[in-house]
Amino acid sequence: MVASTAPASGQADGEAAPIYGVKIPAGYRDWRLISVAHEAGNLNDFRAVLGNDVAVAAYRDGKLLFPDGAIFARLAWSYVPSEENYRVFGRAQSFVAGAPTNVQFMVKDSTKYASRGGWGGAQFKDGKPADEALLKTCFPCHVPVKARDYVFTRYAP
Amino acid sequence: MVASTAPASGQADGEAAPIYGVKIPAGYRDWRLISVAHEAGNLNDFRAVLGNDVAVAAYRDGKLLFPDGAIFARLAWSYVPSEENYRVFGRAQSFVAGAPTNVQFMVKDSTKYASRGGWGGAQFKDGKPADEALLKTCFPCHVPVKARDYVFTRYAP
Repeated sequence: MVASTAPASGQADGEAAPIYGVKIPAGYRDWRLISVAHEAGNLNDFRAVLGNDVAVAAYRDGKLLFPDGAIFARLAWSYVPSEENYRVFGRAQSFVAGAPTNVQFMVKDSTKYASRGGWGGAQFKDGKPADEALLKTCFPCHVPVKARDYVFTRYAP
Repeated sequence: MVASTAPASGQADGEAAPIYGVKIPAGYRDWRLISVAHEAGNLNDFRAVLGNDVAVAAYRDGKLLFPDGAIFARLAWSYVPSEENYRVFGRAQSFVAGAPTNVQFMVKDSTKYASRGGWGGAQFKDGKPADEALLKTCFPCHVPVKARDYVFTRYAP
């Protein structure tokens, strides 16, 4: 199977992202699934949000705030129509995850990141962190969901 | 958070599905993510395919055949436009997972299910198994991907 040769744990690199000093957490690709999404428009990608044990437990316990140590990994892949599935279904109606695009992380540390709701953020593409200018665009979009501790994604059972 | 009160482990029920006798595997909602998909058309849903340890290891080891004991869980949710995200992005471009629809399982047992490529299958909605007529429609669609052990989903790194 072609994709079976993909790296087991997604992207990995020792380099820390700027500003918040977030590194790619070891083994994040093995974290549990929170939910999925599709961004159309310019990005046109598939997303999956995974959470570490602290993050998943907070959802399941119904906590209003994520405790320090909670980390989200937002994986993304290109949004690809599946010709293979089309042949089976008899019409164009199936979209699958293509090549990975980038991975983003939200790390909760209410002291270290007090100035932005307790969340540090980072984005990596092919293991390389995005620059400071990009990272500064993250937090403002999360402010409207401050009531959910700045987290858009809801747990999908 | 509204969705945080959802059942931690997705659907659960002791009842076995017809024909192949597949039950909902305990803790399947905690399994690792294989990939995601969107089915448009009549279903119009989001999908996530999770795999137990045997299934994930087979992908990562590049095995051509999944060993006995491999199990896939195909979760699905309604495909919902996110008005909340629209307000942030300033345009309609964001789709998220809504209410869960049903969950399907593929269970590899090359002896027990020899007549259908070694795979037993089941579908559950609200914990209740789909009937025999529906289950008989599953395998024929998987025959075109016999070369990948009848599995459509490729691992998304």
